[in-house]
Amino acid sequence: MNKVYVVGIGPGGEDGITPQARAAMDQAEVLCGYPVYVDLVKGLYPGKETYTTPMRQELERCRWALETARSGRTVALVCSGDPGVYGMASPLLELVPEFPEVDVEIVPGVTAALSGGALLGAPLGHDFCVISLSDLLTPWEVIERRLACAAKGDFAICLYNPASKKRADHLRWACDILLRDKSPETVCGWVRNISRTGQNRKILTLAQLREERLDMFTTVFIGSSTTRSMDGWMVTPRGYQP
Amino acid sequence: MNKVYVVGIGPGGEDGITPQARAAMDQAEVLCGYPVYVDLVKGLYPGKETYTTPMRQELERCRWALETARSGRTVALVCSGDPGVYGMASPLLELVPEFPEVDVEIVPGVTAALSGGALLGAPLGHDFCVISLSDLLTPWEVIERRLACAAKGDFAICLYNPASKKRADHLRWACDILLRDKSPETVCGWVRNISRTGQNRKILTLAQLREERLDMFTTVFIGSSTTRSMDGWMVTPRGYQP
Repeated sequence: MNKVYVVGIGPGGEDGITPQARAAMDQAEVLCGYPVYVDLVKGLYPGKETYTTPMRQELERCRWALETARSGRTVALVCSGDPGVYGMASPLLELVPEFPEVDVEIVPGVTAALSGGALLGAPLGHDFCVISLSDLLTPWEVIERRLACAAKGDFAICLYNPASKKRADHLRWACDILLRDKSPETVCGWVRNISRTGQNRKILTLAQLREERLDMFTTVFIGSSTTRSMDGWMVTPRGYQP
Repeated sequence: MNKVYVVGIGPGGEDGITPQARAAMDQAEVLCGYPVYVDLVKGLYPGKETYTTPMRQELERCRWALETARSGRTVALVCSGDPGVYGMASPLLELVPEFPEVDVEIVPGVTAALSGGALLGAPLGHDFCVISLSDLLTPWEVIERRLACAAKGDFAICLYNPASKKRADHLRWACDILLRDKSPETVCGWVRNISRTGQNRKILTLAQLREERLDMFTTVFIGSSTTRSMDGWMVTPRGYQP
């Protein structure tokens, strides 16, 4: 069948993969994706053909998936978390007009805002923003403006890609912008290696978060003005007391 | 075991429930929740005891779950979507300090922003906000301010609870606020009855969205300035061209 499934496999463990995602990978003749994510599911499909491309070759990977589907095969393009949240759904769909004979289906998954949030409690229990601190594809000025607006709206915030070797200072810069409108005592948290070996979490203040040195395997949560730390949980109440 | 699992079952179909959520419900002696959600999983557990309370009695339901767990039973408090996104995780955790002998585990699920987004394409492919238009627990002024900040930050936006019989005009008011900073041609979409009978979706402009009469079973998506409609998909590109 000329079909590409863009499949979210959740945080990484087998028990976070929905039956819908399993069914899509069952039907696929080839599993394709970033090597780390293909490795996560290869154990479930030991005999299945795989195709991987390194980081930063996402467009090439999407094109390969669509070309392979056009040749009559069924492909599952595997993403960690959800394919629609900084995943492969949007780069693949941008190429779809070139491949009118290929059928595409997006299969959602549990993104890190949800799986990491569950480990901390309910940091996103009321209105929230999700912002990536990676400026590989987005000018830093756009990220700064979004951080400032998220703080002014008193949203809870989830940060993806808070840092990398080349972007060691991004989290500190982001905290400085947030501190213009948020208290240094704002309850924050981070989760590292969700559902994988070395899973770890911490609840701390925004002032303390500013001093943390985190890596790209970490997801960061910043509370709204109502977020509290209680019994080791980070909780943003559903009701809002202005 | 003195334990409460707060379980996200995803959009509604059996194929959207993760194995982690299934395992939690397998272990539970009682399934508890809002009647519609308990009905969605009762078929999987025909012999299992259930306890339901109507809408607006969420706190009573959380207290019942914690008291039942304190008496030595294992309870699964079932939520649609993800328990951390306008779900039962935060009201339950707020009561936890009164129940030190009870163990709590939050089990994430696929929330409507993701499952609805997948049906439309990739509306949340770049930074986004999630805002509920329900003013049952939140003053309308807070919602207005968040809408204004989300528009100023050029976020993609996902709206939960866009309307109900008592809140027929909320979506129109929200669109009017967004139209101060967003073009009337902004690409929008909505999805109704995700993964259930009568599933439906539509892609339209922000000006058209303002005139729609939607209900509480609908999730709404509003694009950023870069969001496009292509081949029937709503796509927010990952890269950002300012």
